[in-house]
Amino acid sequence: MSVQQAIREMETLLGKERVLTTIEDLACYAFDATADMPSHRPDAIVLPQTTEEVQAIMRIASKHKTPIYPRGAGTNLSGGTIPLKGGVVVTFQRMNKILEIDAENLTATVQPGVVIQSLNTAVAPYGLIYPPDPGTVSTATMAGSTAECSGGLRGLKYGVTKHYIMGLEVVLANGEKFRCGGKTVKNVTAYDLVKLFTGSEGTLGIITELIVKLIPAPESRKSMLAIFSDLDDAGKAIAGIISAKVIPATLEIMDKTTIQTVESFSHAGLPTDAEAVLLIEVDGIPEVVAKEAESVEEVCKQFKGNVRVAETDKERDQLWAARRAALPALAQKSPTTVLEDATVPRSRIPEMLRAIRQIAKKYDLLIGTFGHAGDGNLHPTILCDERNEEQMKRVHKAVDEIFRVAVDLGGTLSGEHGIGMAKMKYLEWELGATGVDVLRRIKEALDPEYLLNPGKMVAGRN
Amino acid sequence: MSVQQAIREMETLLGKERVLTTIEDLACYAFDATADMPSHRPDAIVLPQTTEEVQAIMRIASKHKTPIYPRGAGTNLSGGTIPLKGGVVVTFQRMNKILEIDAENLTATVQPGVVIQSLNTAVAPYGLIYPPDPGTVSTATMAGSTAECSGGLRGLKYGVTKHYIMGLEVVLANGEKFRCGGKTVKNVTAYDLVKLFTGSEGTLGIITELIVKLIPAPESRKSMLAIFSDLDDAGKAIAGIISAKVIPATLEIMDKTTIQTVESFSHAGLPTDAEAVLLIEVDGIPEVVAKEAESVEEVCKQFKGNVRVAETDKERDQLWAARRAALPALAQKSPTTVLEDATVPRSRIPEMLRAIRQIAKKYDLLIGTFGHAGDGNLHPTILCDERNEEQMKRVHKAVDEIFRVAVDLGGTLSGEHGIGMAKMKYLEWELGATGVDVLRRIKEALDPEYLLNPGKMVAGRN
Repeated sequence: MSVQQAIREMETLLGKERVLTTIEDLACYAFDATADMPSHRPDAIVLPQTTEEVQAIMRIASKHKTPIYPRGAGTNLSGGTIPLKGGVVVTFQRMNKILEIDAENLTATVQPGVVIQSLNTAVAPYGLIYPPDPGTVSTATMAGSTAECSGGLRGLKYGVTKHYIMGLEVVLANGEKFRCGGKTVKNVTAYDLVKLFTGSEGTLGIITELIVKLIPAPESRKSMLAIFSDLDDAGKAIAGIISAKVIPATLEIMDKTTIQTVESFSHAGLPTDAEAVLLIEVDGIPEVVAKEAESVEEVCKQFKGNVRVAETDKERDQLWAARRAALPALAQKSPTTVLEDATVPRSRIPEMLRAIRQIAKKYDLLIGTFGHAGDGNLHPTILCDERNEEQMKRVHKAVDEIFRVAVDLGGTLSGEHGIGMAKMKYLEWELGATGVDVLRRIKEALDPEYLLNPGKMVAGRN
Repeated sequence: MSVQQAIREMETLLGKERVLTTIEDLACYAFDATADMPSHRPDAIVLPQTTEEVQAIMRIASKHKTPIYPRGAGTNLSGGTIPLKGGVVVTFQRMNKILEIDAENLTATVQPGVVIQSLNTAVAPYGLIYPPDPGTVSTATMAGSTAECSGGLRGLKYGVTKHYIMGLEVVLANGEKFRCGGKTVKNVTAYDLVKLFTGSEGTLGIITELIVKLIPAPESRKSMLAIFSDLDDAGKAIAGIISAKVIPATLEIMDKTTIQTVESFSHAGLPTDAEAVLLIEVDGIPEVVAKEAESVEEVCKQFKGNVRVAETDKERDQLWAARRAALPALAQKSPTTVLEDATVPRSRIPEMLRAIRQIAKKYDLLIGTFGHAGDGNLHPTILCDERNEEQMKRVHKAVDEIFRVAVDLGGTLSGEHGIGMAKMKYLEWELGATGVDVLRRIKEALDPEYLLNPGKMVAGRN
């Protein structure tokens, strides 16, 4: 078999210790963090240490038409790293060095396997931060989160991963490499290849080095909890905060189902009779924080919100621990947790929340919704059991409807999880047949054989 | 001739009054704002009023293989809109409506021909701004500045055009249209097509509608002039300001040649014996502005800068009038002004300025340099006379060397003007042969016949 021949050539290239083929290894890489997805074992896992090795791996793969799956920590939520068609997983544990911290130009240069949190720890002594903060910062890698264009809680004020990727080194399907972007804040040299490869989910090339933007860490911050007994009031408060010209670092929402579940899980003191709570954090220099916190409080009160301000670090930590408990709390209620990331314009959040509630009722499902209200990025989370076939049919119908509503409200299929395997079937709803054809033409221009992460985002013609 | 047949079909489509073919009209569209470029008359100029008309124009062009040049106000500085290979210019004077201002979602939806300043005037009553501010805000159009990904003075703090384009409607070479992006702050649905078409210089598709991001207008601002008798001190002050965790809205530099020229032109009170001046503006809420202005002043003084703070609006306006006079002042000294936008990492600015001075000496040319120091985006401006063939040879050699140095210092060929015709020959220096091949593959995937803005950015294989 040619895949076996490819693996033998990779063993010659890397040595047997960096080509994993035991059944235990293959089983570990057959799935990722995404629920309700088919799993599939790769034929091997390889661990390159240099860009040149990645190039050589791709040349071998090209010769033998072996599918290749670049993989960071596998924390994505769209089935993005499942080796669906067999072949070889390329993982970057051995390419995990921070190559440079350039405080003068506010950049860091890193290898693909660096964990996001490690970068933040390394830049902290310079008073700098790398703002993107997906829930998995302590495990997700820089290249993985770049390929997926991860979001997180600070998207409204600070943007998401794509806003911080300044330069890339990329290995193409044919084994050639190139660099684009760099340390300049401004760069309009030709097509924005940095942005094209950011969020390309490993389907166009393999990221082997990154230059990222850092920013000064905010001097201070203040967190608040606002409790609403009416969903529309919560929606009005969200709009009102922005209208008051405050852009909070974080502006999160949890619905009733989520509040009740979190409270029974963590006893954080959340009001179980509320329809919705907002969790808000403003940051910046102390003068700004004081002023903005006051504005936020006023707006929330204006819309009948009951506001609690975290006065101490401990109170702040408790508040955010409750938010972080949302997913684990929901997850422990059922064997399977289908976590989606339907995203709508900020002003349509109440409509979206109501639609999700109706869909839950229609299909007799328990759906908790929480998420990033400031940027309209909601996480409807369906509690189910993937062993229950009849229930899963209802789940799939509910998910279909959730995305249909999101697109109809002027939203998008994915705010931060990407398309992967999970949402390919919906792509035409958002981009139309012509838009999907544009994706396919770009994919085929750079990877005509569909060697890179096949079965993800862009379906081949056959 | 098939181009004449195409024009006849476009006359049938649009009526004769929207298809311009007089010699006067053709002459007006033969060039753009870029100096030292060949001019070339189009065969016709067409004025569509709807997206459907743009689609029909592209279908006619496809049928007859007629080159098409989308054009805004022609203010670009890279020869981006010159109809180099003949054919038809598509201009958007008749598609210049602001379709929606959505204050709640902080977006505006506009047609391609809207002038940037008109948008800012329209959103001002909402307390909002559209931050990108190329020098030509009062004439440049939204689609033109998007296709070129224009920069401007506020890039350091606010970013450039690409950071504000959220959604696009695009007509492809084959006449099909699609939409990508939208009003959601987060969107990771498939490849970032919005960013791909932004800065694509009209070579991949025609932008027929845009959704752009607005932000709250800063409440207050403070401007300063810092005078340095040593270039390195000015460079250290730039780095020092950023190290002090201040990100000014504007941080501009003018070198000695520029200072002297501006002063003799406008008598603004600039110090003609200085080696460099920095012009700095901080903005935000009053408390922040006061604090940041103080930090900036301290840093400048630390590096022997002599600081003048604009205490009144009039003083502020005078200061920025002097900066805006840089190009006209330099331009009136000679018949031809070759304005470049070499860009380097912020920390390399003194090296770049010194290199430009040496190049000027080597080729016996007068080069004034000013620009956006905060983001390393410099404008070396060569004063010359395009009728002087011998001198122009030296100019071209000097330009080659300036870009060679910029790339060698880790910079880029273009911070904000784009590639167009002007910089195609340098592309491999930055992207390598593989990177240029990636551009070509993307171009050919979407426009295999090179119908859209041919001769710009990506050279055909033949």
